[in-house]
Amino acid sequence: MIRTVEWTDVGVVMLDQRLLPSLETYVTCKDHREVAEAIRSMVIRGAPAIGVAAAMGVALGVRNSRAGDVSELDAEFGRICDVLSGTRPTAVNLFWAVERMRRTYQRMRFQGVEAIRAALILEAQQMHAEDIDANRRMGRFGQELVPHRARILTHCNAGALATAGYGTALGVIRAAVEAGKAVEVFADETRPFLQGARLTAWELEKDNIPVTVITDGMAGHFMRLGRIDCVIVGADRIAANGDVANKIGTYSVAVLARENSIPFFVAAPVSTLDLAVPDGSLIPIEERDPEEVRRVGGVLITSASTRVANPAFDVTPSGYVSAIITDRGVARPPYAESLRRLAA
Amino acid sequence: MIRTVEWTDVGVVMLDQRLLPSLETYVTCKDHREVAEAIRSMVIRGAPAIGVAAAMGVALGVRNSRAGDVSELDAEFGRICDVLSGTRPTAVNLFWAVERMRRTYQRMRFQGVEAIRAALILEAQQMHAEDIDANRRMGRFGQELVPHRARILTHCNAGALATAGYGTALGVIRAAVEAGKAVEVFADETRPFLQGARLTAWELEKDNIPVTVITDGMAGHFMRLGRIDCVIVGADRIAANGDVANKIGTYSVAVLARENSIPFFVAAPVSTLDLAVPDGSLIPIEERDPEEVRRVGGVLITSASTRVANPAFDVTPSGYVSAIITDRGVARPPYAESLRRLAA
Repeated sequence: MIRTVEWTDVGVVMLDQRLLPSLETYVTCKDHREVAEAIRSMVIRGAPAIGVAAAMGVALGVRNSRAGDVSELDAEFGRICDVLSGTRPTAVNLFWAVERMRRTYQRMRFQGVEAIRAALILEAQQMHAEDIDANRRMGRFGQELVPHRARILTHCNAGALATAGYGTALGVIRAAVEAGKAVEVFADETRPFLQGARLTAWELEKDNIPVTVITDGMAGHFMRLGRIDCVIVGADRIAANGDVANKIGTYSVAVLARENSIPFFVAAPVSTLDLAVPDGSLIPIEERDPEEVRRVGGVLITSASTRVANPAFDVTPSGYVSAIITDRGVARPPYAESLRRLAA
Repeated sequence: MIRTVEWTDVGVVMLDQRLLPSLETYVTCKDHREVAEAIRSMVIRGAPAIGVAAAMGVALGVRNSRAGDVSELDAEFGRICDVLSGTRPTAVNLFWAVERMRRTYQRMRFQGVEAIRAALILEAQQMHAEDIDANRRMGRFGQELVPHRARILTHCNAGALATAGYGTALGVIRAAVEAGKAVEVFADETRPFLQGARLTAWELEKDNIPVTVITDGMAGHFMRLGRIDCVIVGADRIAANGDVANKIGTYSVAVLARENSIPFFVAAPVSTLDLAVPDGSLIPIEERDPEEVRRVGGVLITSASTRVANPAFDVTPSGYVSAIITDRGVARPPYAESLRRLAA
């Protein structure tokens, strides 16, 4: 059992994903600022995991607050929420989770500081449990799309490490294995942060699911040679029309899958849907520190001053997406209708 | 002026491309086995550069030979050629260069050992000079396809470092700059060996040509956003029908270019054409050491035992290729005819 993020009496404990697979160490965040910094610096990453961590961060901030009454807490609560919301712009689960904590706060507001505290801590833990449940449901829906003996390509890490547990894309793969299907996984290494090489391989190896790491440029080659049967990826935000923001490189995989007549599936909980955003062009794409591209494991690979770009996500137009697997069922095109129905 | 490979009295001197851009060091190969090992271990790489290095390796082997007469030299010469031909299987320039050295040997065979030695050394140096000339001609032909203010994507390194000098794809870019065009280059980092991040950026920066390094998964994203005007890559072997074997990841770039209506150009000398091979499916694809994928700059990025694949090349079907720029002119589809005409 992988413990990605957990609420404990001493704080929010996270497996430090920057150091995997060479080191399995845990970070304890003792206040909401430390949680925010852990999200920003990618100690924890993955849209659903970020959502749960942010909710726990809000709960931690309120638990640590010295506010004597609710009116004092009101302003502080707003600031706590803002610190967590300000960490990363693309994954909508972050905003969804903070918004849900705001609603809980509002619901409890007239019952006093202690009741608010208790409710927020409970709500964050509840979101942790619900995320695992959602992933298991998603797995059951999604595994029906996975043929026996499928060779599945995935990009980035949409696994237990990207969620409270079990995973979205890797949850579907785990469910296929649990249903008795023999599957084999090709994991794109996913530069610059190497989530595929470092995280996806690590968690699938733990579960004895056969996995082969390939560089991002190899995916098309293996598709063309007929060695990939389907693609399953996660998502950071899905617009109302089905456009999918996900880890940089996902769009390329989708185009290559279409070109080679390979189904391209996205697995994400309904908390990843952002029906307020009509299409992907309106999803903000985070630009991260150029040093993430210039260095690998601390080693400089370019000249120190080489210009680099580092968009962390891209948008895959819905036309490339064969199906979106959610915890409420599988959405098919046209997504404007199917997603609205699922979200209702 | 970049000195990729040079014939000197003490041996074949090569810039060690494994250590760029952090270290600019030169390796002196004192016998043909050292040249072969330098090619195999990628001290030197790039189809035309490998060809020139192999020719110099043959010349060096014969120079060092203690054979007293031609009949003694005959058997030794065959072994020298085999050692060099056996280094890398995909780039056809290697076999072309060794074959050319064989023909020179046969032509000189009746003039005695000393005459053979002198002729082979001259031939290898001649091939070095011819390669630079070919690249300059290719540049002049190719730059006409490059619009003023073009933002050009390239993959791997098809530059001065991949040739005796000036470069194939980067030669076209240099020629465009010399023709007064403002261009900007996006360089795919090109995992696993990082030729784009390490070599292409280094040589373009030396020439003050603006370059931005991106990870391989970003190319499609920038194409979709309309930020790339054309793609220019090199080639390791081009089949009679125009299918192009080139660095792994090239096929993906070609598919993404097509999908986004961006011209995809291949620049290669006629020595890269292999008209004996009808199509790309018959080109042998080198599988290299898995450690090249598992490690970056010596640092392990996966678990030590993670399974990886490491095909060094892929094949881009000719249907994705807008034009092939050679030193004898620009070939357009249908390539079966245009390439045969150019090669004649």
